Amino acid sequence: MDSSSPIIYVVEPYGGSIRRHNSALPLIYWDDAAVTRGDGVFETLLIRDGHPANLQRHLDRFRASARLLELPEPNGEDWIAATREAVTEWSQRSEEDAKCVWTYTRGRETTGHPSAWLTLTPVADSVLKQRKKGVKVMTSPRGFSIDTSLPGVDEATEGGDPKPAPWLTVGAKTLNYAANMAALRYARSRGFDDVIYVDPGTGRVLEGATSTVITVRSGGKLRTPVPGGDILPGTTQAALFEYAEEEGWRCKAKDMTVERLLDAESVWLVSSVRVAVRVTEIDGVPLPAPDNEDEVRDLINSALGAE
Amino acid sequence: MDSSSPIIYVVEPYGGSIRRHNSALPLIYWDDAAVTRGDGVFETLLIRDGHPANLQRHLDRFRASARLLELPEPNGEDWIAATREAVTEWSQRSEEDAKCVWTYTRGRETTGHPSAWLTLTPVADSVLKQRKKGVKVMTSPRGFSIDTSLPGVDEATEGGDPKPAPWLTVGAKTLNYAANMAALRYARSRGFDDVIYVDPGTGRVLEGATSTVITVRSGGKLRTPVPGGDILPGTTQAALFEYAEEEGWRCKAKDMTVERLLDAESVWLVSSVRVAVRVTEIDGVPLPAPDNEDEVRDLINSALGAE
Repeated sequence: MDSSSPIIYVVEPYGGSIRRHNSALPLIYWDDAAVTRGDGVFETLLIRDGHPANLQRHLDRFRASARLLELPEPNGEDWIAATREAVTEWSQRSEEDAKCVWTYTRGRETTGHPSAWLTLTPVADSVLKQRKKGVKVMTSPRGFSIDTSLPGVDEATEGGDPKPAPWLTVGAKTLNYAANMAALRYARSRGFDDVIYVDPGTGRVLEGATSTVITVRSGGKLRTPVPGGDILPGTTQAALFEYAEEEGWRCKAKDMTVERLLDAESVWLVSSVRVAVRVTEIDGVPLPAPDNEDEVRDLINSALGAE
Repeated sequence: MDSSSPIIYVVEPYGGSIRRHNSALPLIYWDDAAVTRGDGVFETLLIRDGHPANLQRHLDRFRASARLLELPEPNGEDWIAATREAVTEWSQRSEEDAKCVWTYTRGRETTGHPSAWLTLTPVADSVLKQRKKGVKVMTSPRGFSIDTSLPGVDEATEGGDPKPAPWLTVGAKTLNYAANMAALRYARSRGFDDVIYVDPGTGRVLEGATSTVITVRSGGKLRTPVPGGDILPGTTQAALFEYAEEEGWRCKAKDMTVERLLDAESVWLVSSVRVAVRVTEIDGVPLPAPDNEDEVRDLINSALGAE
């Protein structure tokens, strides 16, 4: 195995062994629900300075995703142990950031047991470049709406607030990402780097294709669209807001329109591995660099190192 | 390899070799887009009497799905050749029906080449039982709506009819089936066998979780909801309507409400492997067996054998 190959650990789902898997060999069987149905959940973590960043929030969301899909509760200790083993191996190779992906699937149809593994790879050059240069985005409707007030759903969820249908597993980070990938391909074919989804009915900004939207406003304010519903709560945004509050910033989740992006001091897409990329253009309108660009970037990086 | 193990053939994507894969070994690599994103397409075919049923329609839909996902055009001859090899092997084992699944994914991130394979397995006992006993269904909203008149989409699709966002790849049979599977689990937990999706706004019947809805009405009429939009065109329904027309039935795609299901002579869910299961109950309301139950079942089976 050469020293640049991905580091893979298989995690036995019921608290069994953790084992190193050779990345040159196939890993997944023909009847795994991840392959046949996209039926599983994942988390992507940044590995920095010998540690998984923002670990507890990723673990919490991983557990919540599994619960929404009615998968057995993942054994947190095993995932942490496997991650630390992979990180130790990585640290012997490189001091650079790395990307760690946890995957947990409904598993093989013929065995009925879940499948679970993690991979650790270098951060892609394209990501490193975007961290420096920022991204040009197009805004776009997502193309579908999640219904929250349906005749069947109220009964199904036993009343309470308007809720989406339980089988949509809204809020879970599932492997069903083909539409997001297609939206990114579409954006790139038109000369953009990324997409920000906007609700066509209300004009409300939702999220990036694989990131959370943050605005910096004058007076030391940070804003993000209210998570929940069809906006996946972001682990990086949560870490940032907690840390920034302590540093004297005023942070609030608040719905916003595209106009509120255009008149902000700066707009950022935050996510685990890309961390923070500044939006330099929205639908062709340039967003000039703010005076505090480096300060904001340092703040986000510090938030991830703060735990 | 024991004689009951699945038959797997790997199909090289650019018209290369077809090779037998041992099902006891893993098949798919850690970085395949099928696993990481559910990014691929599939078709499920019935193998009966030594032949793949309804082959041309499956091939056509497979090609259309690949095109919608911007995957390289699948080589039809290779898929047919691989299917015939697998079927020959199956025929030496058994005269029973079998299930053949074609899978074609965006492939490995590290190579950029698509992955493609087929599997051939016995038909599950639960499916054989449903063919005989029928299914109890619950109706339910799908839980989301696909927007067809969006500000961005009209420009994106260069005008014309209202269309869904291109990145939703509506009409493609993709591996993103987790929501359908969750809906089926939900239905089963409440004592039902299957789900028929209904549009909550209009009351329009859409489709089953993995099947097309057909009604038989008096006077030798067959009806199905108009396919397209968020109803995947069914290959079994298409074969049935073509054959039944020749046999003197009057067949029409026509939107219908749940009331039109309840006052039909009989209601059927048709799909490739289950072929035709009669709906025996809708939301707790029994649908008694019609006098011509066997005739309708024979008609559908004959339609699949007619090509």
